[in-house]
Amino acid sequence: MKVTAMISIIPIGGGLSLSPYVAPCERILAEAGLDPKLHAHGSNVEGEWDTVMDAIRRCHEKVHEMGAPRISTYLKLGTRTDRDLSMDDAVRSVREKLAENEG
Amino acid sequence: MKVTAMISIIPIGGGLSLSPYVAPCERILAEAGLDPKLHAHGSNVEGEWDTVMDAIRRCHEKVHEMGAPRISTYLKLGTRTDRDLSMDDAVRSVREKLAENEG
Amino acid sequence: MKVTAMISIIPIGGGLSLSPYVAPCERILAEAGLDPKLHAHGSNVEGEWDTVMDAIRRCHEKVHEMGAPRISTYLKLGTRTDRDLSMDDAVRSVREKLAENEG
Amino acid sequence: MKVTAMISIIPIGGGLSLSPYVAPCERILAEAGLDPKLHAHGSNVEGEWDTVMDAIRRCHEKVHEMGAPRISTYLKLGTRTDRDLSMDDAVRSVREKLAENEG
Repeated sequence: MKVTAMISIIPIGGGLSLSPYVAPCERILAEAGLDPKLHAHGSNVEGEWDTVMDAIRRCHEKVHEMGAPRISTYLKLGTRTDRDLSMDDAVRSVREKLAENEG
Repeated sequence: MKVTAMISIIPIGGGLSLSPYVAPCERILAEAGLDPKLHAHGSNVEGEWDTVMDAIRRCHEKVHEMGAPRISTYLKLGTRTDRDLSMDDAVRSVREKLAENEG
Repeated sequence: MKVTAMISIIPIGGGLSLSPYVAPCERILAEAGLDPKLHAHGSNVEGEWDTVMDAIRRCHEKVHEMGAPRISTYLKLGTRTDRDLSMDDAVRSVREKLAENEG
Repeated sequence: MKVTAMISIIPIGGGLSLSPYVAPCERILAEAGLDPKLHAHGSNVEGEWDTVMDAIRRCHEKVHEMGAPRISTYLKLGTRTDRDLSMDDAVRSVREKLAENEG
């Protein structure tokens, strides 16, 4: 089963700056072949369910190893059976609607 | 690695009532030994990372089988290495702070 | 417009224990008449949109005053126009489905 | 108080395609001066707390008017008092960490 996911990982007790933790996590997602799209509230990935979940577990393990004793993560997951999932399609179809209405 | 999770599953395109989909998912979580605590915005579970993620995947599969072509799920995950995780402790420690301040 | 909300507030940079921050926030929600239901991943409230949002803003202000320089909050909001919203109903209808299927 | 927000609005009971609802909401956010950054799991905005919350309420009202009887919205909010908030900075600081480590 394919899944699209938004991942937002918040280390707690490891200081105010989150980017030192987010960067290695971003690398783990990329190395898993999940083509992460970083944005201001997290990173969007797509792939097989188990590949995605395994990469997220490795993010948690890495962030704990780096010294954050506690982590709170938000995931938004999407699956669908009616047609292929694609994050690019999701953005494109909103942009098309916007263009139509402004046309 | 142990994880606490809040799971909120939203079937899309399967009608207005969500409870017919949530109930079987609740059963899957219980059968996986995750002791789900149902509340108005989802269900709280705790267990081993892979057990939790596997149960959530089976929820998605079940809800698709029941006829919802599209699912959006929110997960809030917590892990910690400084001490044992416990959802009961999380609630109790807030209640204790409330009681102290009102005492 | 009525709204049901799940609120999960995470102070960053204020130490590992979150309960000292969550307790005053819980009190703000109660004093606003939102009847908060505390659980392991947040607190569920229901009320008028502006009352809910105003109380959440006051939670942020309070937690900053208490010394957390950075806050990340998750909100899950529900509105509906087809019938009255009720968090109790949401839980009850899942429990009824569970009972039917086990009957 | 300034806030950064990720907004993900899910109409329920209004069909499988979400883009017809997301597009007008995106326009409301833009007209409120919130400079929305659309991505595959929602839209990122930044602005004054009340301006952001007011725009989100108008999104709900609009989506209900368009025929979706039920809406579930997911918000991730960030506030900070130690320095100015900026979504661009958040992304840039992760990219800098990635570049350093690859350098």
